[in-house]
Amino acid sequence: MKLLRFGEPGRERPGIIDSQQQIRDLSSIVGDISGQTLTPEGLAKIQACDINTLPVVSNTHRIGPCVSGVGKFICIGLNYVDHCEETGAEVPAEPVVFMKATSAITGPNDGVIMPRGSEKLDWEVEMGIVIGRETRYVDEADALDYIAGYCVVHDVSERSFQLERGGQWDKGKGCDSFGPIGPYLVTADALSDPLNLDIWLSVNGKLYQNSNTRNMVFGPAKLVSYLSQFMSLQPGDIISTGTPPGVGLGQKPPVYLKVGDKIRLGIKGLGEQEQSVLSSV
Amino acid sequence: MKLLRFGEPGRERPGIIDSQQQIRDLSSIVGDISGQTLTPEGLAKIQACDINTLPVVSNTHRIGPCVSGVGKFICIGLNYVDHCEETGAEVPAEPVVFMKATSAITGPNDGVIMPRGSEKLDWEVEMGIVIGRETRYVDEADALDYIAGYCVVHDVSERSFQLERGGQWDKGKGCDSFGPIGPYLVTADALSDPLNLDIWLSVNGKLYQNSNTRNMVFGPAKLVSYLSQFMSLQPGDIISTGTPPGVGLGQKPPVYLKVGDKIRLGIKGLGEQEQSVLSSV
Repeated sequence: MKLLRFGEPGRERPGIIDSQQQIRDLSSIVGDISGQTLTPEGLAKIQACDINTLPVVSNTHRIGPCVSGVGKFICIGLNYVDHCEETGAEVPAEPVVFMKATSAITGPNDGVIMPRGSEKLDWEVEMGIVIGRETRYVDEADALDYIAGYCVVHDVSERSFQLERGGQWDKGKGCDSFGPIGPYLVTADALSDPLNLDIWLSVNGKLYQNSNTRNMVFGPAKLVSYLSQFMSLQPGDIISTGTPPGVGLGQKPPVYLKVGDKIRLGIKGLGEQEQSVLSSV
Repeated sequence: MKLLRFGEPGRERPGIIDSQQQIRDLSSIVGDISGQTLTPEGLAKIQACDINTLPVVSNTHRIGPCVSGVGKFICIGLNYVDHCEETGAEVPAEPVVFMKATSAITGPNDGVIMPRGSEKLDWEVEMGIVIGRETRYVDEADALDYIAGYCVVHDVSERSFQLERGGQWDKGKGCDSFGPIGPYLVTADALSDPLNLDIWLSVNGKLYQNSNTRNMVFGPAKLVSYLSQFMSLQPGDIISTGTPPGVGLGQKPPVYLKVGDKIRLGIKGLGEQEQSVLSSV
Protein backbone atom coordinates (compact mmCIF):
# COMPACT_ATOMS: atom_id res chain seq x y z
CA MET A 1 0.00 0.00 0.00
CA LYS A 2 1.01 3.60 -0.63
CA LEU A 3 -0.25 5.82 2.19
CA LEU A 4 -0.12 9.59 2.22
CA ARG A 5 -1.60 12.74 3.70
CA PHE A 6 -3.20 15.52 1.66
CA GLY A 7 -4.58 18.99 2.41
CA GLU A 8 -3.38 22.22 3.95
CA PRO A 9 -0.60 22.21 6.58
CA GLY A 10 -1.94 21.08 9.94
CA ARG A 11 -5.25 19.98 8.42
CA GLU A 12 -4.10 17.02 6.31
CA ARG A 13 -6.35 14.00 5.77
CA PRO A 14 -5.18 10.40 5.30
CA GLY A 15 -5.19 8.89 1.83
CA ILE A 16 -4.15 5.86 -0.17
CA ILE A 17 -3.02 5.55 -3.80
CA ASP A 18 -5.17 3.14 -5.81
CA SER A 19 -4.15 1.00 -8.80
CA GLN A 20 -5.01 3.87 -11.18
CA GLN A 21 -2.64 6.17 -9.25
CA GLN A 22 -5.59 8.12 -7.88
CA ILE A 23 -5.71 9.29 -4.27
CA ARG A 24 -8.59 7.80 -2.25
CA ASP A 25 -9.73 9.46 0.99
CA LEU A 26 -9.08 7.16 3.98
CA SER A 27 -10.75 9.44 6.55
CA SER A 28 -13.62 7.04 7.06
CA ILE A 29 -11.20 4.21 7.96
CA VAL A 30 -8.41 5.86 10.01
CA GLY A 31 -8.00 9.25 11.66
CA ASP A 32 -4.53 9.98 10.32
CA ILE A 33 -1.35 8.32 9.04
CA SER A 34 0.41 8.38 12.40
CA GLY A 35 1.94 5.88 14.82
CA GLN A 36 -1.29 4.13 15.74
CA THR A 37 -2.31 3.63 12.11
CA LEU A 38 1.11 2.21 11.27
CA THR A 39 0.90 -0.66 13.76
CA PRO A 40 0.05 -4.11 12.34
CA GLU A 41 -3.52 -3.65 13.68
CA GLY A 42 -3.86 -0.23 12.07
CA LEU A 43 -2.54 -1.37 8.70
CA ALA A 44 -4.79 -4.48 8.82
CA LYS A 45 -7.79 -2.19 9.15
CA ILE A 46 -6.85 -0.43 5.91
CA GLN A 47 -6.04 -3.71 4.16
CA ALA A 48 -9.47 -5.07 5.08
CA CYS A 49 -11.35 -2.30 3.29
CA ASP A 50 -12.20 -2.16 -0.41
CA ILE A 51 -10.36 1.01 -1.37
CA ASN A 52 -12.26 1.26 -4.64
CA THR A 53 -15.33 2.23 -2.63
CA LEU A 54 -13.55 5.21 -1.04
CA PRO A 55 -13.98 8.74 -2.44
CA VAL A 56 -11.48 9.78 -5.12
CA VAL A 57 -9.61 12.93 -4.15
CA SER A 58 -8.66 15.65 -6.62
CA ASN A 59 -4.96 15.56 -7.46
CA THR A 60 -4.76 19.32 -7.01
CA HIS A 61 -4.43 19.02 -3.23
CA ARG A 62 -1.15 19.78 -1.52
CA ILE A 63 0.64 16.61 -0.39
CA GLY A 64 1.64 16.76 3.29
CA PRO A 65 4.36 14.84 5.12
CA CYS A 66 3.40 11.15 4.83
CA VAL A 67 3.58 10.54 8.60
CA SER A 68 2.06 12.69 11.32
CA GLY A 69 3.08 12.92 14.98
CA VAL A 70 6.63 11.68 14.45
CA GLY A 71 8.19 11.16 17.90
CA LYS A 72 11.81 10.77 16.84
CA PHE A 73 13.49 11.71 13.57
CA ILE A 74 16.75 9.75 13.75
CA CYS A 75 19.45 10.04 11.09
CA ILE A 76 22.41 7.90 10.12
CA GLY A 77 25.60 9.54 8.86
CA LEU A 78 28.19 8.24 6.38
CA ASN A 79 26.18 5.13 5.47
CA TYR A 80 26.98 4.62 1.75
CA VAL A 81 30.08 2.72 0.68
CA ASP A 82 30.50 4.94 -2.38
CA HIS A 83 30.08 8.10 -0.28
CA CYS A 84 32.86 6.88 2.05
CA GLU A 85 35.05 6.20 -0.97
CA GLU A 86 34.33 9.61 -2.48
CA THR A 87 35.21 11.49 0.69
CA GLY A 88 38.17 9.26 1.52
CA ALA A 89 36.59 8.45 4.87
CA GLU A 90 36.83 4.97 6.31
CA VAL A 91 33.64 2.95 6.40
CA PRO A 92 32.40 3.45 9.99
CA ALA A 93 32.68 0.47 12.32
CA GLU A 94 29.21 1.17 13.65
CA PRO A 95 26.43 3.54 12.59
CA VAL A 96 26.88 7.27 13.16
CA VAL A 97 23.65 8.54 14.75
CA PHE A 98 22.18 12.03 15.10
CA MET A 99 18.72 13.54 15.36
CA LYS A 100 16.71 16.06 13.39
CA ALA A 101 14.13 18.29 15.07
CA THR A 102 10.63 16.99 14.35
CA SER A 103 9.56 20.61 13.72
CA ALA A 104 11.68 20.43 10.54
CA ILE A 105 9.23 18.00 8.92
CA THR A 106 7.31 19.29 5.88
CA GLY A 107 5.52 17.99 2.83
CA PRO A 108 7.55 16.70 -0.13
CA ASN A 109 6.96 19.73 -2.34
CA ASP A 110 6.61 22.53 0.22
CA GLY A 111 9.87 24.26 -0.50
CA VAL A 112 13.10 24.53 1.41
CA ILE A 113 13.43 27.73 3.43
CA MET A 114 16.94 29.17 3.53
CA PRO A 115 17.45 30.20 7.17
CA ARG A 116 18.70 33.67 8.05
CA GLY A 117 22.47 33.73 7.98
CA SER A 118 22.69 30.61 5.84
CA GLU A 119 25.84 30.36 3.71
CA LYS A 120 26.10 26.66 2.90
CA LEU A 121 22.67 25.19 2.28
CA ASP A 122 23.04 21.61 1.04
CA TRP A 123 20.99 18.61 -0.09
CA GLU A 124 20.91 14.91 0.93
CA VAL A 125 18.44 12.43 -0.56
CA GLU A 126 17.85 9.50 1.81
CA MET A 127 15.60 6.49 2.27
CA GLY A 128 13.51 6.70 5.43
CA ILE A 129 12.39 3.72 7.52
CA VAL A 130 9.08 4.20 9.36
CA ILE A 131 8.64 2.18 12.56
CA GLY A 132 5.41 0.23 13.03
CA ARG A 133 5.80 -1.49 16.42
CA GLU A 134 7.46 -0.44 19.66
CA THR A 135 10.75 -2.22 20.21
CA ARG A 136 13.90 -2.26 22.33
CA TYR A 137 16.85 -4.65 22.12
CA VAL A 138 15.54 -6.36 18.99
CA ASP A 139 17.81 -8.85 17.19
CA GLU A 140 18.77 -8.12 13.60
CA ALA A 141 16.98 -11.32 12.51
CA ASP A 142 13.67 -10.01 13.87
CA ALA A 143 14.13 -6.30 13.20
CA LEU A 144 12.26 -6.12 9.89
CA ASP A 145 9.06 -7.10 11.75
CA TYR A 146 9.12 -3.66 13.37
CA ILE A 147 9.17 -1.66 10.13
CA ALA A 148 5.84 -0.34 8.82
CA GLY A 149 7.25 1.01 5.59
CA TYR A 150 9.66 3.22 3.70
CA CYS A 151 9.61 6.73 2.23
CA VAL A 152 11.79 9.39 0.62
CA VAL A 153 13.44 11.80 3.08
CA HIS A 154 15.29 14.97 2.15
CA ASP A 155 17.84 15.56 4.93
CA VAL A 156 18.39 19.25 4.13
CA SER A 157 21.53 20.53 5.85
CA GLU A 158 23.24 23.84 6.49
CA ARG A 159 26.95 23.03 6.58
CA SER A 160 28.18 26.20 8.29
CA PHE A 161 25.57 25.74 11.06
CA GLN A 162 26.36 22.01 11.23
CA LEU A 163 30.14 22.11 11.21
CA GLU A 164 31.37 25.61 12.04
CA ARG A 165 29.21 26.69 14.98
CA GLY A 166 30.60 24.48 17.74
CA GLY A 167 30.04 20.97 18.96
CA GLN A 168 27.31 18.77 17.59
CA TRP A 169 25.59 18.71 14.18
CA ASP A 170 22.05 19.54 15.33
CA LYS A 171 22.14 23.29 14.57
CA GLY A 172 22.50 22.57 10.87
CA LYS A 173 20.00 19.74 10.57
CA GLY A 174 16.81 20.82 12.32
CA CYS A 175 15.84 24.16 10.76
CA ASP A 176 12.21 24.55 9.73
CA SER A 177 11.57 22.89 6.33
CA PHE A 178 14.77 20.80 6.54
CA GLY A 179 12.85 17.51 6.65
CA PRO A 180 10.52 16.94 3.67
CA ILE A 181 9.12 13.40 3.86
CA GLY A 182 7.01 11.57 1.29
CA PRO A 183 5.19 11.88 -1.09
CA TYR A 184 3.91 8.59 0.34
CA LEU A 185 4.92 5.76 2.61
CA VAL A 186 5.15 2.36 0.91
CA THR A 187 4.29 -0.42 3.34
CA ALA A 188 7.02 -3.01 3.84
CA ASP A 189 4.93 -5.82 2.25
CA ALA A 190 4.69 -3.81 -0.99
CA LEU A 191 8.43 -3.32 -1.44
CA SER A 192 10.24 -6.44 -2.62
CA ASP A 193 13.75 -5.27 -1.75
CA PRO A 194 14.47 -1.93 -0.03
CA LEU A 195 18.17 -2.64 -0.58
CA ASN A 196 17.96 -2.49 -4.37
CA LEU A 197 16.44 0.88 -5.20
CA ASP A 198 17.86 3.62 -7.40
CA ILE A 199 18.21 6.86 -5.44
CA TRP A 200 18.93 10.25 -7.02
CA LEU A 201 18.80 14.03 -6.65
CA SER A 202 19.17 16.89 -9.10
CA VAL A 203 19.48 20.66 -8.73
CA ASN A 204 18.28 22.88 -11.57
CA GLY A 205 18.21 19.82 -13.80
CA LYS A 206 21.79 18.71 -13.07
CA LEU A 207 22.03 15.24 -11.53
CA TYR A 208 24.26 15.37 -8.45
CA GLN A 209 23.34 12.19 -6.57
CA ASN A 210 22.77 8.92 -8.40
CA SER A 211 23.26 5.67 -6.56
CA ASN A 212 21.40 2.61 -5.31
CA THR A 213 20.38 1.63 -1.79
CA ARG A 214 22.43 -1.56 -2.22
CA ASN A 215 25.48 0.63 -1.50
CA MET A 216 24.36 1.20 2.09
CA VAL A 217 26.87 0.16 4.74
CA PHE A 218 24.22 -0.75 7.32
CA GLY A 219 20.83 -1.87 6.01
CA PRO A 220 17.40 -1.44 7.61
CA ALA A 221 17.50 -4.61 9.77
CA LYS A 222 20.90 -3.72 11.20
CA LEU A 223 19.92 -0.08 11.81
CA VAL A 224 16.67 -0.89 13.63
CA SER A 225 18.42 -3.52 15.75
CA TYR A 226 21.37 -1.24 16.47
CA LEU A 227 19.31 1.81 17.42
CA SER A 228 17.07 -0.29 19.66
CA GLN A 229 20.13 -0.97 21.85
CA PHE A 230 20.31 2.76 22.63
CA MET A 231 16.68 3.84 22.74
CA SER A 232 13.23 2.35 22.36
CA LEU A 233 11.55 2.91 19.00
CA GLN A 234 7.87 3.78 18.70
CA PRO A 235 5.39 3.52 15.82
CA GLY A 236 5.74 6.62 13.66
CA ASP A 237 9.43 7.14 14.44
CA ILE A 238 11.51 7.72 11.31
CA ILE A 239 15.07 6.54 10.69
CA SER A 240 16.72 8.27 7.75
CA THR A 241 19.38 5.93 6.43
CA GLY A 242 22.07 8.25 5.13
CA THR A 243 22.87 9.80 1.79
CA PRO A 244 24.84 8.56 -1.23
CA PRO A 245 27.69 10.61 -2.72
CA GLY A 246 27.15 13.86 -4.56
CA VAL A 247 26.18 16.39 -1.91
CA GLY A 248 27.10 20.04 -2.45
CA LEU A 249 29.85 19.95 0.17
CA GLY A 250 31.53 17.16 -1.77
CA GLN A 251 31.79 19.07 -5.08
CA LYS A 252 35.11 20.58 -6.12
CA PRO A 253 34.65 23.45 -5.47
CA PRO A 254 31.60 23.03 -3.18
CA VAL A 255 28.22 24.01 -4.59
CA TYR A 256 25.50 25.35 -2.30
CA LEU A 257 21.82 26.09 -2.82
CA LYS A 258 20.58 29.59 -3.64
CA VAL A 259 17.12 31.10 -3.40
CA GLY A 260 15.17 30.07 -6.48
CA ASP A 261 17.03 26.80 -7.08
CA LYS A 262 14.86 23.81 -7.99
CA ILE A 263 15.60 20.49 -6.34
CA ARG A 264 14.19 17.18 -7.50
CA LEU A 265 14.87 13.91 -5.74
CA GLY A 266 13.48 10.42 -5.62
CA ILE A 267 13.84 6.74 -4.94
CA LYS A 268 12.57 4.15 -7.37
CA GLY A 269 9.26 2.81 -6.04
CA LEU A 270 9.04 5.41 -3.27
CA GLY A 271 8.15 8.43 -5.39
CA GLU A 272 9.63 11.86 -5.99
CA GLN A 273 9.89 15.24 -4.27
CA GLU A 274 10.31 18.68 -5.84
CA GLN A 275 11.28 21.78 -3.89
CA SER A 276 12.15 25.38 -4.61
CA VAL A 277 14.58 27.16 -2.32
CA LEU A 278 12.74 30.04 -0.63
CA SER A 279 14.10 32.98 1.33
CA SER A 280 13.37 33.17 5.03
CA VAL A 281 10.69 35.67 6.07
CA MET B 1 1.90 28.22 39.86
CA LYS B 2 3.39 24.78 40.28
CA LEU B 3 1.93 22.40 37.71
CA LEU B 4 2.46 18.66 37.62
CA ARG B 5 1.09 15.35 36.38
CA PHE B 6 0.19 12.43 38.62
CA GLY B 7 -0.92 8.83 38.08
CA GLU B 8 0.37 5.73 36.34
CA PRO B 9 2.62 6.03 33.25
CA GLY B 10 0.63 6.97 30.18
CA ARG B 11 -2.48 7.72 32.24
CA GLU B 12 -1.33 10.80 34.17
CA ARG B 13 -3.76 13.55 35.12
CA PRO B 14 -2.93 17.26 35.42
CA GLY B 15 -2.52 18.80 38.86
CA ILE B 16 -1.47 21.94 40.68
CA ILE B 17 0.21 22.41 44.08
CA ASP B 18 -1.83 24.59 46.44
CA SER B 19 -0.57 26.86 49.23
CA GLN B 20 -0.67 23.92 51.70
CA GLN B 21 1.58 21.89 49.35
CA GLN B 22 -1.33 19.61 48.48
CA ILE B 23 -1.95 18.40 44.95
CA ARG B 24 -5.27 19.54 43.46
CA ASP B 25 -6.76 17.76 40.47
CA LEU B 26 -6.87 20.07 37.42
CA SER B 27 -8.70 17.60 35.15
CA SER B 28 -11.87 19.68 35.15
CA ILE B 29 -9.95 22.74 33.87
CA VAL B 30 -7.39 21.38 31.37
CA GLY B 31 -6.89 18.03 29.65
CA ASP B 32 -3.19 17.70 30.39
CA ILE B 33 -0.05 19.72 31.12
CA SER B 34 1.11 19.84 27.52
CA GLY B 35 1.91 22.45 24.90
CA GLN B 36 -1.58 23.84 24.53
CA THR B 37 -2.03 24.25 28.30
CA LEU B 38 1.32 26.06 28.56
CA THR B 39 0.36 28.87 26.18
CA PRO B 40 -0.59 32.20 27.74
CA GLU B 41 -4.26 31.33 27.02
CA GLY B 42 -3.95 27.92 28.65
CA LEU B 43 -2.22 29.26 31.75
CA ALA B 44 -4.77 32.08 32.04
CA LYS B 45 -7.52 29.47 32.20
CA ILE B 46 -5.85 27.86 35.22
CA GLN B 47 -5.13 31.22 36.83
CA ALA B 48 -8.78 32.18 36.51
CA CYS B 49 -10.02 29.25 38.57
CA ASP B 50 -10.19 29.04 42.36
CA ILE B 51 -7.90 26.12 42.97
CA ASN B 52 -9.17 25.67 46.51
CA THR B 53 -12.42 24.37 45.04
CA LEU B 54 -10.61 21.58 43.13
CA PRO B 55 -10.42 18.02 44.56
CA VAL B 56 -7.41 17.30 46.76
CA VAL B 57 -5.39 14.36 45.44
CA SER B 58 -3.74 11.79 47.71
CA ASN B 59 0.00 12.29 47.89
CA THR B 60 0.54 8.56 47.40
CA HIS B 61 0.20 8.86 43.62
CA ARG B 62 3.19 8.43 41.38
CA ILE B 63 4.41 11.78 39.98
CA GLY B 64 4.79 11.72 36.20
CA PRO B 65 6.91 13.92 33.95
CA CYS B 66 5.63 17.47 34.44
CA VAL B 67 5.09 18.07 30.70
CA SER B 68 3.38 15.73 28.25
CA GLY B 69 3.77 15.58 24.48
CA VAL B 70 7.20 17.22 24.39
CA GLY B 71 8.08 17.87 20.74
CA LYS B 72 11.77 18.68 21.17
CA PHE B 73 14.07 17.97 24.10
CA ILE B 74 17.02 20.24 23.38
CA CYS B 75 20.15 20.28 25.54
CA ILE B 76 22.99 22.73 26.00
CA GLY B 77 26.51 21.46 26.70
CA LEU B 78 29.31 23.08 28.72
CA ASN B 79 27.19 25.96 30.00
CA TYR B 80 28.54 26.58 33.50
CA VAL B 81 31.55 28.81 34.04
CA ASP B 82 32.73 26.67 36.99
CA HIS B 83 32.30 23.48 34.95
CA CYS B 84 34.50 24.96 32.19
CA GLU B 85 37.10 25.91 34.81
CA GLU B 86 37.01 22.44 36.37
CA THR B 87 37.54 20.64 33.09
CA GLY B 88 40.05 23.15 31.78
CA ALA B 89 37.83 23.78 28.76
CA GLU B 90 37.44 27.24 27.33
CA VAL B 91 34.09 28.91 27.81
CA PRO B 92 32.32 28.24 24.47
CA ALA B 93 31.88 31.22 22.16
CA GLU B 94 28.32 30.13 21.42
CA PRO B 95 26.02 27.49 22.91
CA VAL B 96 26.76 23.81 22.25
CA VAL B 97 23.47 22.17 21.22
CA PHE B 98 22.37 18.54 21.09
CA MET B 99 19.08 16.67 21.43
CA LYS B 100 17.72 13.97 23.69
CA ALA B 101 15.15 11.46 22.45
CA THR B 102 11.70 12.38 23.78
CA SER B 103 11.16 8.68 24.55
CA ALA B 104 13.77 9.11 27.31
CA ILE B 105 11.37 11.27 29.35
CA THR B 106 10.17 9.80 32.65
CA GLY B 107 8.80 10.93 35.98
CA PRO B 108 11.15 12.48 38.56
CA ASN B 109 11.28 9.41 40.80
CA ASP B 110 10.80 6.56 38.32
CA GLY B 111 14.32 5.18 38.47
CA VAL B 112 17.17 5.27 36.00
CA ILE B 113 17.51 2.10 33.95
CA MET B 114 21.08 1.05 33.23
CA PRO B 115 21.06 0.07 29.54
CA ARG B 116 22.52 -3.26 28.43
CA GLY B 117 26.24 -2.93 27.85
CA SER B 118 26.47 0.24 29.94
CA GLU B 119 29.88 0.85 31.50
CA LYS B 120 29.89 4.57 32.30
CA LEU B 121 26.46 5.66 33.51
CA ASP B 122 26.64 9.26 34.70
CA TRP B 123 24.51 12.03 36.20
CA GLU B 124 23.85 15.68 35.25
CA VAL B 125 21.43 17.91 37.16
CA GLU B 126 20.12 20.74 34.96
CA MET B 127 17.51 23.47 34.91
CA GLY B 128 14.93 23.01 32.16
CA ILE B 129 13.17 25.82 30.32
CA VAL B 130 9.66 24.97 29.07
CA ILE B 131 8.46 26.90 26.01
CA GLY B 132 5.00 28.48 26.12
CA ARG B 133 4.63 30.20 22.73
CA GLU B 134 5.81 29.31 19.25
CA THR B 135 8.72 31.43 18.15
CA ARG B 136 11.45 31.78 15.53
CA TYR B 137 14.10 34.49 15.25
CA VAL B 138 13.18 36.09 18.58
CA ASP B 139 15.45 38.81 19.99
CA GLU B 140 17.08 38.23 23.34
CA ALA B 141 15.17 41.22 24.74
CA ASP B 142 11.84 39.55 23.96
CA ALA B 143 12.81 35.92 24.51
CA LEU B 144 11.56 35.57 28.10
CA ASP B 145 8.00 36.19 26.83
CA TYR B 146 8.15 32.75 25.19
CA ILE B 147 8.99 30.80 28.35
CA ALA B 148 6.09 29.14 30.19
CA GLY B 149 8.18 27.97 33.13
CA TYR B 150 11.10 26.06 34.55
CA CYS B 151 11.68 22.58 35.98
CA VAL B 152 14.38 20.19 37.17
CA VAL B 153 15.84 17.95 34.44
CA HIS B 154 18.15 15.01 34.99
CA ASP B 155 20.24 14.68 31.82
CA VAL B 156 21.31 11.07 32.49
CA SER B 157 24.23 10.14 30.23
CA GLU B 158 26.16 7.01 29.27
CA ARG B 159 29.69 8.23 28.57
CA SER B 160 30.93 5.19 26.65
CA PHE B 161 27.86 5.34 24.36
CA GLN B 162 28.21 9.14 24.10
CA LEU B 163 31.92 9.45 23.47
CA GLU B 164 33.36 6.11 22.39
CA ARG B 165 30.84 4.75 19.85
CA GLY B 166 31.49 7.08 16.94
CA GLY B 167 30.36 10.49 15.87
CA GLN B 168 27.69 12.38 17.71
CA TRP B 169 26.57 12.30 21.37
CA ASP B 170 23.00 11.07 20.84
CA LYS B 171 23.61 7.36 21.52
CA GLY B 172 24.54 8.15 25.11
CA LYS B 173 21.84 10.70 25.85
CA GLY B 174 18.53 9.25 24.67
CA CYS B 175 18.20 5.84 26.35
CA ASP B 176 14.87 5.09 27.99
CA SER B 177 14.64 6.69 31.46
CA PHE B 178 17.52 9.11 30.71
CA GLY B 179 15.24 12.17 30.96
CA PRO B 180 13.44 12.51 34.31
CA ILE B 181 11.65 15.89 34.39
CA GLY B 182 9.82 17.49 37.30
CA PRO B 183 8.46 17.01 39.94
CA TYR B 184 6.62 20.12 38.78
CA LEU B 185 6.90 23.02 36.41
CA VAL B 186 7.06 26.45 38.06
CA THR B 187 5.50 29.09 35.85
CA ALA B 188 7.79 31.97 34.93
CA ASP B 189 5.72 34.53 36.86
CA ALA B 190 6.25 32.55 40.09
CA LEU B 191 10.06 32.48 39.90
CA SER B 192 11.69 35.79 40.77
CA ASP B 193 15.11 35.00 39.30
CA PRO B 194 15.88 31.75 37.45
CA LEU B 195 19.52 32.86 37.36
CA ASN B 196 19.99 32.73 41.13
CA LEU B 197 18.99 29.21 42.19
CA ASP B 198 21.07 26.66 44.09
CA ILE B 199 21.43 23.46 42.05
CA TRP B 200 22.78 20.19 43.47
CA LEU B 201 22.98 16.42 43.08
CA SER B 202 24.08 13.62 45.43
CA VAL B 203 24.73 9.90 44.96
CA ASN B 204 24.28 7.60 47.94
CA GLY B 205 24.27 10.64 50.20
CA LYS B 206 27.50 12.14 48.84
CA LEU B 207 27.12 15.60 47.35
CA TYR B 208 28.78 15.68 43.92
CA GLN B 209 27.21 18.72 42.25
CA ASN B 210 26.62 21.94 44.19
CA SER B 211 26.43 25.21 42.31
CA ASN B 212 24.06 28.03 41.45
CA THR B 213 22.36 28.87 38.17
CA ARG B 214 24.11 32.26 38.27
CA ASN B 215 27.18 30.40 37.01
CA MET B 216 25.56 29.70 33.66
CA VAL B 217 27.44 30.97 30.62
CA PHE B 218 24.30 31.56 28.52
CA GLY B 219 21.09 32.31 30.41
CA PRO B 220 17.48 31.50 29.42
CA ALA B 221 16.87 34.63 27.31
CA LYS B 222 20.06 34.10 25.31
CA LEU B 223 19.38 30.38 24.84
CA VAL B 224 15.81 30.82 23.62
CA SER B 225 16.87 33.60 21.25
CA TYR B 226 19.89 31.64 20.01
CA LEU B 227 18.03 28.38 19.41
CA SER B 228 15.23 30.20 17.60
CA GLN B 229 17.77 31.18 14.92
CA PHE B 230 18.22 27.49 14.08
CA MET B 231 14.74 26.02 14.57
CA SER B 232 11.28 27.14 15.56
CA LEU B 233 10.29 26.43 19.15
CA GLN B 234 6.83 25.17 20.07
CA PRO B 235 4.85 25.18 23.34
CA GLY B 236 5.93 22.17 25.39
CA ASP B 237 9.46 22.03 23.97
CA ILE B 238 12.10 21.72 26.70
CA ILE B 239 15.55 23.29 26.71
CA SER B 240 17.86 21.79 29.30
CA THR B 241 20.43 24.42 30.17
CA GLY B 242 23.55 22.39 30.98
CA THR B 243 25.07 20.99 34.13
CA PRO B 244 27.39 22.46 36.78
CA PRO B 245 30.67 20.73 37.72
CA GLY B 246 30.80 17.47 39.62
CA VAL B 247 29.66 14.83 37.12
CA GLY B 248 31.06 11.29 37.48
CA LEU B 249 33.28 11.66 34.42
CA GLY B 250 34.97 14.64 36.08
CA GLN B 251 36.00 12.81 39.28
CA LYS B 252 39.60 11.67 39.69
CA PRO B 253 39.34 8.76 39.11
CA PRO B 254 35.92 8.83 37.39
CA VAL B 255 32.95 7.50 39.36
CA TYR B 256 30.03 5.86 37.54
CA LEU B 257 26.61 4.70 38.68
CA LYS B 258 25.92 1.09 39.67
CA VAL B 259 22.65 -0.77 40.01
CA GLY B 260 21.16 0.06 43.39
CA ASP B 261 22.71 3.52 43.68
CA LYS B 262 20.41 6.26 45.00
CA ILE B 263 20.51 9.63 43.26
CA ARG B 264 18.95 12.79 44.68
CA LEU B 265 18.96 16.10 42.87
CA GLY B 266 17.20 19.41 43.02
CA ILE B 267 17.05 23.09 42.31
CA LYS B 268 15.95 25.55 44.96
CA GLY B 269 12.33 26.52 44.23
CA LEU B 270 11.92 23.88 41.50
CA GLY B 271 11.74 20.79 43.73
CA GLU B 272 13.67 17.56 44.02
CA GLN B 273 13.99 14.21 42.24
CA GLU B 274 15.05 10.86 43.70
CA GLN B 275 16.00 7.86 41.57
CA SER B 276 17.36 4.38 42.10
CA VAL B 277 19.54 2.85 39.42
CA LEU B 278 17.78 -0.22 38.03
CA SER B 279 19.10 -3.01 35.85
CA SER B 280 17.77 -3.32 32.32
CA VAL B 281 15.27 -6.13 31.78
